Amino acid sequence: MATLKDVARRSGLTVGTVSRVLNNRGYISEQTRQRVYDVMKELDYQPNEMARSLSKKRSNTIGVIVPHVVHPYFAKLIGSLEQAAYDRKYKILLFNSQGKDEKEEEYIEMCKSNRVAGVILCSDTFQTDKFRNLRFPLITIERFLDEGTAGIECDNYRGGVLAAEHLIAKGCTSLLHIGGIRNHRKPADERKEGFEDVCKREHIKYASVESSQFIYDEMDYYSSIDRMLDEYPGTDGVFASSDVIAAQVLQVCARRGLRVPEQMKVIGYDDVNVASLTTPDITTIRQPVKEMAETAIAMIDRVAGGEMVPSRSLFPVTLVERGST
Amino acid sequence: MATLKDVARRSGLTVGTVSRVLNNRGYISEQTRQRVYDVMKELDYQPNEMARSLSKKRSNTIGVIVPHVVHPYFAKLIGSLEQAAYDRKYKILLFNSQGKDEKEEEYIEMCKSNRVAGVILCSDTFQTDKFRNLRFPLITIERFLDEGTAGIECDNYRGGVLAAEHLIAKGCTSLLHIGGIRNHRKPADERKEGFEDVCKREHIKYASVESSQFIYDEMDYYSSIDRMLDEYPGTDGVFASSDVIAAQVLQVCARRGLRVPEQMKVIGYDDVNVASLTTPDITTIRQPVKEMAETAIAMIDRVAGGEMVPSRSLFPVTLVERGST
Repeated sequence: MATLKDVARRSGLTVGTVSRVLNNRGYISEQTRQRVYDVMKELDYQPNEMARSLSKKRSNTIGVIVPHVVHPYFAKLIGSLEQAAYDRKYKILLFNSQGKDEKEEEYIEMCKSNRVAGVILCSDTFQTDKFRNLRFPLITIERFLDEGTAGIECDNYRGGVLAAEHLIAKGCTSLLHIGGIRNHRKPADERKEGFEDVCKREHIKYASVESSQFIYDEMDYYSSIDRMLDEYPGTDGVFASSDVIAAQVLQVCARRGLRVPEQMKVIGYDDVNVASLTTPDITTIRQPVKEMAETAIAMIDRVAGGEMVPSRSLFPVTLVERGST
Repeated sequence: MATLKDVARRSGLTVGTVSRVLNNRGYISEQTRQRVYDVMKELDYQPNEMARSLSKKRSNTIGVIVPHVVHPYFAKLIGSLEQAAYDRKYKILLFNSQGKDEKEEEYIEMCKSNRVAGVILCSDTFQTDKFRNLRFPLITIERFLDEGTAGIECDNYRGGVLAAEHLIAKGCTSLLHIGGIRNHRKPADERKEGFEDVCKREHIKYASVESSQFIYDEMDYYSSIDRMLDEYPGTDGVFASSDVIAAQVLQVCARRGLRVPEQMKVIGYDDVNVASLTTPDITTIRQPVKEMAETAIAMIDRVAGGEMVPSRSLFPVTLVERGST
């Protein structure tokens, strides 16, 4: 394997000069730069990122911790984070916590010992004491964390408002909100508040129910949706707090012989690909995932540069109208 | 930041002994091991993975290159790869090529300079000359690559056979196969061969059509599905080469007033979450993604240990019957 010294020897330059070319530091003539690149190619020299990171005390990798890669929302988020990281010359170390505390603890240790430039956390069973004494910025997406550097969220309250107003405008008179998870306080809980505030203001009958962590992990909401529709039989509009839940509401309605949107209107949240792939396709509240991801990655850069970043950033949401309403 | 020397000094041991504990090498009494761990905790010492990797000449990361993280099949595959990597103490560096040659080239360079333990490649626009002189094993999943160490595939031919046999057993008399991408030769092309062989054997009318790279990247098959149904008006059974395509066939059928499964039966491929979330849900050919991912990660270990691995491994597929047939 060719070394930096071999490149210097062959190009007739000092190791210091070759190193300056590689690190893009100081003045180097275009001719010298080209000579170094030619020799690197000739010798098949690979700069050793690990050695470079070691001297910099931090690597150019960013740890991303999500609870479920396979969930369409996190798949979309990871795709956007990878693109934003690539644009800023970072690489993504991906960790899938599956909601397990011991895995998350281990992941944070791995991030520490790999000297990551930062961590983006989208998981939610974290205990806060694991986050003391971190030497890198910690950015959360759609999560609260007291010890975090910054939190990025969509405007969940506004999302709930838009959903309720849309269902009411479409003529619904008895609304049901199906929430995500009961046990952890999350920004997404504000969707319910926005929804309920509109129902109260407009004097519309409503109910809100939440599902358990187990159901979230398995993405299996069928039996709880069935129970909810039994409990609130007059329901003619459902606001589901994810498109995955909304898709399952459509399936339960089909089984019960309820026509969507004629007898039951359904609105989801997120705007992931599932929302476009069902029959009918799903009206939803769109999170600007791409912009949220870009901001998260940019913040790691800004914190590293000594800048102050907002501790909480809220992104606007939009209503995307489709066949289910 | 505490160093190895600090740990040695505080625990009253030599640097060599502390290093042996960290690397789990040679005989160390349980008492000594415990003393080192206690001091590490006390000093908040973080072993530096980068430095360790440097001395080992390879890191404990595995590069994973996919064309589209957001596609449900790759989301599922990445989730399984992350789990399998975690079980064997590897971390995943994730790269999303978006089918762009220049990104892929850059990713391979990044993997080289980060001294990855191996690369798992699920992308498909790679030119083969990029893969010369790699110093790590290269495992492909559902892709052909002459320069690769090993290829892992599901039994695509058998999948095509199962799909055609199922549609025929359900009473279909005129079948249509909608393939993925035309321009690259891929293991998935064998689904078509299996499908056609059964149709010929059973003297069933059939047609096979394929979509373009652009449609695949955008996951937008609607207009080509419409065109295909116009061109083959008597079709009563469709075998789509992915669940995403199958979901869109359901949507086009709904728009055309064709009832599924009464007037049109539809079968997909992969068994990703979308297949369970449509109305009706989709009968599909299940790829054993978890087992394929575990094998890919295990192979990197085996190659590193000097073992020979099969150059091509075929995994069995199964039919999962649901509402669309």
